[in-house]
Amino acid sequence: MMLVNGQPSESISALDRGLSYGDGLFETIRFERDAAPLWNRHMQRLALGCERLRLPMPNRALLWQEAQQVGATLLRFVLRITLTRGVGERGYAPPAVVVPTRIVAAFPLPALPESLYADGIRLHRCQTTLADQPLLAGIKHLNRLEQVLARAEWNDPAIGEGLVCDRHGNVISATAANLFAVIDGVPVTPAVDRCGVAGVARAAMLDAFPHCQVRDLPHDEALRASELFLSSSVRGILPVQAVGDTVYAPGPVVRAMQQHWRALGFPMEQA
Amino acid sequence: MMLVNGQPSESISALDRGLSYGDGLFETIRFERDAAPLWNRHMQRLALGCERLRLPMPNRALLWQEAQQVGATLLRFVLRITLTRGVGERGYAPPAVVVPTRIVAAFPLPALPESLYADGIRLHRCQTTLADQPLLAGIKHLNRLEQVLARAEWNDPAIGEGLVCDRHGNVISATAANLFAVIDGVPVTPAVDRCGVAGVARAAMLDAFPHCQVRDLPHDEALRASELFLSSSVRGILPVQAVGDTVYAPGPVVRAMQQHWRALGFPMEQA
Repeated sequence: MMLVNGQPSESISALDRGLSYGDGLFETIRFERDAAPLWNRHMQRLALGCERLRLPMPNRALLWQEAQQVGATLLRFVLRITLTRGVGERGYAPPAVVVPTRIVAAFPLPALPESLYADGIRLHRCQTTLADQPLLAGIKHLNRLEQVLARAEWNDPAIGEGLVCDRHGNVISATAANLFAVIDGVPVTPAVDRCGVAGVARAAMLDAFPHCQVRDLPHDEALRASELFLSSSVRGILPVQAVGDTVYAPGPVVRAMQQHWRALGFPMEQA
Repeated sequence: MMLVNGQPSESISALDRGLSYGDGLFETIRFERDAAPLWNRHMQRLALGCERLRLPMPNRALLWQEAQQVGATLLRFVLRITLTRGVGERGYAPPAVVVPTRIVAAFPLPALPESLYADGIRLHRCQTTLADQPLLAGIKHLNRLEQVLARAEWNDPAIGEGLVCDRHGNVISATAANLFAVIDGVPVTPAVDRCGVAGVARAAMLDAFPHCQVRDLPHDEALRASELFLSSSVRGILPVQAVGDTVYAPGPVVRAMQQHWRALGFPMEQA
């Protein structure tokens, strides 16, 4: 089910600036039995995005109510909130009066085999690199062509994600997940202040495991990691089994973070 | 009037990847009395964009026919063609079967006072800089947040455009137009192979004035230009009167290019 500005609808104006320019933000939020354990973090990131793009932040209670409404018949689901600067005249100049478009929609939770949590997934090393744009880094905006291009680089169903670097040879993330590497026993996750998205699952892990380092992570260093794994608010904590021909084995850090993920309220067994 | 996949409509699916990820392209094409003098150049750029994003290029004859249809009652208008990868499941992976969305819409031609063509427009020096992304540079894709942020930097109606640089201090363009500077008597327009859009009016001028140079243009050099002017497929050739406190006067190069613009079939007098 889907609500557009509170009304049941599955369409938006073809003049919406979300379509014309990608002028907006989104969040994908996992719900488990009416609960969304990372809801507050998603709201914080959405508010940060609104501040950066100078969009009015929607009322949180209203978003929660709409989430309940669209997910009413589902036990587990992914909520997508899309927020745009609304309909505008042709041209980049923001409308004098902004009436944002708010889309709230529920999608089935993707079914991941349990073996992925146990054994991990395989990554393609993407050739597409992320551009440095500090004004847009960290937030989850609607300009996602880099991710689309990176994800289009492979179609082998045995490969679950892609490893994406910046233009300086630093590892940044997967196409739709953050990344952690264990280097000399210390969990490291790449800084996302020039490119990449500051994931909420990543934020939850950084809070729970304060010895994690946030810094630039050169690709060569990531390849020597003792553990490599992904964090995603939808898919959770996923060990990386291999990046191309370089293989990894799950270790104690990823297992601890998986345990924390489960403790937050996200089962890793699929229904 | 507007056509979505050939049918009169003003809305698109809220699940369109054009909205979800900015996964698509657009063109804005000026029509004068049923003629679009730069049509072929717009089609060439759209085809290049399709190739880069691996989208099927729509049939050109069909686009022309739809343009005639939406502009039937208008003497002069701006046509916007928007092409997206269509509706897709949640996630960056392109759908197995792509059914693109094609939006063709006519808008009134913006009325520019003749004095702008005679005396020029004032530019704001934008703080927003463009990121280097060769995979997306040159084409007119739907990821336009950088332009939105740059254009949002001023709201003084006396300022008509913004001067936008890259992260290395090179001038690239205006927010919605290309830029030419006359340096030591030679017209120079910035290269757009790392960022920026390869404008069709710019391409028409480069063909007609083959002594133009296409190269990196450091900001300091642009400030010392004897002439500075913009090219836009909608607004034509516009002298720059000032960038902040630095003033410029129209000279022989901009006048020659304006003459060529008029000869292409674009009057600079407004009805």
